[in-house]
Amino acid sequence: MGNPMAKNLMKHGYPLIIYDVFPDACKEFQDAGEQVVSSPEDVAEKADRIITVLPTSINAIEAYSGANGILKKVKKGSLLIDSSTIDPAVSKELAKEAEKMGAVFMDAPVSGGVGAARSGNLTFMVGGVEDEFAAAQQLLGCMGSNVVYCGAVGTGQAAKICNNMLLAISMIGTAETMNLGIRLGLDPKLLAKILNMSSGRCWSSDSYNPVPGVMDGVPSANNYQGGFGTTLMAKDLGLAQDSATSTKSPILLGSQAHQIYRMMCAKGYSQKDFSSVFQFLREEETF
Amino acid sequence: MGNPMAKNLMKHGYPLIIYDVFPDACKEFQDAGEQVVSSPEDVAEKADRIITVLPTSINAIEAYSGANGILKKVKKGSLLIDSSTIDPAVSKELAKEAEKMGAVFMDAPVSGGVGAARSGNLTFMVGGVEDEFAAAQQLLGCMGSNVVYCGAVGTGQAAKICNNMLLAISMIGTAETMNLGIRLGLDPKLLAKILNMSSGRCWSSDSYNPVPGVMDGVPSANNYQGGFGTTLMAKDLGLAQDSATSTKSPILLGSQAHQIYRMMCAKGYSQKDFSSVFQFLREEETF
Amino acid sequence: MGNPMAKNLMKHGYPLIIYDVFPDACKEFQDAGEQVVSSPEDVAEKADRIITVLPTSINAIEAYSGANGILKKVKKGSLLIDSSTIDPAVSKELAKEAEKMGAVFMDAPVSGGVGAARSGNLTFMVGGVEDEFAAAQQLLGCMGSNVVYCGAVGTGQAAKICNNMLLAISMIGTAETMNLGIRLGLDPKLLAKILNMSSGRCWSSDSYNPVPGVMDGVPSANNYQGGFGTTLMAKDLGLAQDSATSTKSPILLGSQAHQIYRMMCAKGYSQKDFSSVFQFLREEETF
Amino acid sequence: MGNPMAKNLMKHGYPLIIYDVFPDACKEFQDAGEQVVSSPEDVAEKADRIITVLPTSINAIEAYSGANGILKKVKKGSLLIDSSTIDPAVSKELAKEAEKMGAVFMDAPVSGGVGAARSGNLTFMVGGVEDEFAAAQQLLGCMGSNVVYCGAVGTGQAAKICNNMLLAISMIGTAETMNLGIRLGLDPKLLAKILNMSSGRCWSSDSYNPVPGVMDGVPSANNYQGGFGTTLMAKDLGLAQDSATSTKSPILLGSQAHQIYRMMCAKGYSQKDFSSVFQFLREEETF
Repeated sequence: MGNPMAKNLMKHGYPLIIYDVFPDACKEFQDAGEQVVSSPEDVAEKADRIITVLPTSINAIEAYSGANGILKKVKKGSLLIDSSTIDPAVSKELAKEAEKMGAVFMDAPVSGGVGAARSGNLTFMVGGVEDEFAAAQQLLGCMGSNVVYCGAVGTGQAAKICNNMLLAISMIGTAETMNLGIRLGLDPKLLAKILNMSSGRCWSSDSYNPVPGVMDGVPSANNYQGGFGTTLMAKDLGLAQDSATSTKSPILLGSQAHQIYRMMCAKGYSQKDFSSVFQFLREEETF
Repeated sequence: MGNPMAKNLMKHGYPLIIYDVFPDACKEFQDAGEQVVSSPEDVAEKADRIITVLPTSINAIEAYSGANGILKKVKKGSLLIDSSTIDPAVSKELAKEAEKMGAVFMDAPVSGGVGAARSGNLTFMVGGVEDEFAAAQQLLGCMGSNVVYCGAVGTGQAAKICNNMLLAISMIGTAETMNLGIRLGLDPKLLAKILNMSSGRCWSSDSYNPVPGVMDGVPSANNYQGGFGTTLMAKDLGLAQDSATSTKSPILLGSQAHQIYRMMCAKGYSQKDFSSVFQFLREEETF
Repeated sequence: MGNPMAKNLMKHGYPLIIYDVFPDACKEFQDAGEQVVSSPEDVAEKADRIITVLPTSINAIEAYSGANGILKKVKKGSLLIDSSTIDPAVSKELAKEAEKMGAVFMDAPVSGGVGAARSGNLTFMVGGVEDEFAAAQQLLGCMGSNVVYCGAVGTGQAAKICNNMLLAISMIGTAETMNLGIRLGLDPKLLAKILNMSSGRCWSSDSYNPVPGVMDGVPSANNYQGGFGTTLMAKDLGLAQDSATSTKSPILLGSQAHQIYRMMCAKGYSQKDFSSVFQFLREEETF
Repeated sequence: MGNPMAKNLMKHGYPLIIYDVFPDACKEFQDAGEQVVSSPEDVAEKADRIITVLPTSINAIEAYSGANGILKKVKKGSLLIDSSTIDPAVSKELAKEAEKMGAVFMDAPVSGGVGAARSGNLTFMVGGVEDEFAAAQQLLGCMGSNVVYCGAVGTGQAAKICNNMLLAISMIGTAETMNLGIRLGLDPKLLAKILNMSSGRCWSSDSYNPVPGVMDGVPSANNYQGGFGTTLMAKDLGLAQDSATSTKSPILLGSQAHQIYRMMCAKGYSQKDFSSVFQFLREEETF
């Protein structure tokens, strides 16, 4: 994700100072004349507006608070924007540490895949001090068409996690429903049409239907290639579970959705789009 | 439901022959000059187009195959339309018995509440022989604005059950998600807005939000009065469960939704709208 | 099951009158000089103590109430014992029909596999009029070492279904727990030992452990061959679900167990022992 | 728990150096001539065998790694035993930090309530370097009748968490099963007897039956007073969930059990024994 996001910043005329744990990932930018450095703290020494995109909470902690982390050399007044999807409790902790150094940390997780990143059509859900939102919006607006202010630090993560939990639940629900309807003799296209004009309607039924043959241009039409991988959904559901456990919020279906995507990862669906839960529910044909 | 449906038939000029197990329910029609009889078989003796609306599978079996049932005296060529929500296997069985008597049975469960029944805006999902659909549509069109042909007999029930199962799953999912988001510090109206422009969007989040204060004119704005009762949702989920068990279709979230609505019935929510699952999940305030 | 049960009756000196839908199944008994007839009603014409063992509720209804069923020619005062595992509501219905004919129907589902059937060590759970229990016990005692009176007709089924539901829940629970413990670094034999001396102890952990290498002489030690098949467990859980739905009893884990065994049937585990749920939960090794 | 544990050490002749965040909790020991200090680091300065019992992972981190924590002044060669029930990942982390200071950390969570603590009959599940187990056993043996070595550091926690997860699953399963059986017409005592001689048998059915009237001397016989509180079970299931999420182990029923106990906490059952799940499932009588 970082690559197309950085390119959109370049297009808008921002000079870049870049770091990635995999030096190869930076080569393209070096060739284009951008500055590549060798640690997060080096970035912090040279820039006062920093955007990070990392896969897990642990990576984010390392990048900010690690031995060579951003907070080691962050300048006073710097704006730190983390676009990773991580535990909101970690975002809050990093914001506290940044504040001690006189910097401002905002969480701004991103929604939309690599395609949206390329075309600058990502959605950012932003949490942090409201006064700084305009400054964050200026940068994030170069990469996304939708920049939403969600509230105090951590609420960007919260909004992202909440959306993906409801998405997972309605996707599994759609898959179960379509499968049951088909077994009861309904034509899948007709069933989708009926649901979509009734109270069962949801994004998973009307924009991303998991049943092959119902819609064009979605992963189910392409053997569940592309899209949003099952392993990523399982990760986000793990974050939802952690947040629910620590806030003591009951999530009966959310927990179950987490376990179902966990099972799918164990059974060979990791790299398929998360709508492949329809395939997971189906009777296997060869035994 | 039968009362406003019958009135709409009257408005369209159809003479009625009426039976109800509770004679009082017929009085209004008798006073208006319609013919009231004393058993389902009496109706069958006098009419060749019969519409039934009954609360359970057992009631439907009794009305058709019972000692004084319609099939005892049904005329050859009669059209029998059952608008009850019942087990699709029962609809199929009744169709077979009707066929033996030379009559045609169609299932046409109805969606929409008493309000829609009064204004003639119900949706009918119709299963049965396609050749007879036009005849059914002529009658049902007097009572509903939407008459959908779903396929062979039983598929009307199947479509209704499928829609309501997905509805229950997305309603519980919406309630869990809104509750989690609120506990994580999000404003409920803002969270609903974010979900509704993202992939978590569903009818329960954008048209019937279960959180008080988010939308006007929905049961959550009125202490969960009116709407679709928890006990009716539990009944429909029981039908979904029965159909899934007999067709061996896995419904992991559908089963869980059934159990959650069952628990709610046990805990005093029977008469509240099914969106009160949000209230059920919330921490109680007094202990 | 019927074969070894019938042989044990022969061993105790009872003459047999036998019917099976597959005539080949009777040949062995014919060769041994027993009488083979061609329909259930023929049995009823000649015998006044009849034992049935059938795979499903539908088969039982056919055998008793079908066109050539037992009740067509049952003698007054006959004792009818059904050892099928079926819906208790069906048992009650058959008992009512038998009573109309002056006969007594008892449900007596059986627990224990083919091995226990051969050695006469089955357990029978018997429901029906208490006065007739002694007569039933006399016959069932030839085939089982344990004949338990459970109460009114249908309660034999209820006890069987309840036991198997709790068994399924604790087996899945044991499999999840053993798998989690192993991933957390515990030796499986040691973990089983700790559970078995603590409050996690259950039959599935101490007598039928699902993890290969923990116990000898159980299906997990033999690639999940033999034992009680997943497809049979799924069937019994379907009966539990039906009973729970019709009595409006919440079974949150029971429903989930049902769905898990249903998924396993869809994924190639039908013929394996039900303890193979441990294998189902494990990460697959080849992808 | 700390109070009766400390007294048993006294009885065995060990002099004590005591710290508690609530000074009042230490008064009794001060009066008895034991030494009371004012921070964990003070304990570490004076003692080389330290036992901690704390309610949460966060408290344990504070006590060991906090500003005045044990590790600030721990002596080389000290033996640190933590009897808290916490996340095994935290135990591992603390062991690493202790090792850097030349000390040995072992996790030894405890099973059994206040009664067992008083009578010295606790069970300890111990994780850590095997060479040090004998030294730990010497101390723990004063407080518990059962000291089990589980493996590397963290496995004591793992064993405790695993046992309690299986316990929660079988308790809910037992409650659902007993409730279903009763609604199907079975006598609860008889049903318990049948389960306990069959494959449904578990500790929750045979030693701690949740149905009032089935057993004496258990919380269900005393309005669910005493025993192991629902809120504590919910906490342990949260730890199981965290461990399962981080090790990517599917726990379909374990997750559901967590959510059910979470719901019960939200609905007024926090302080009742965890077997009160039977009451939670029952139809309420007044509405």
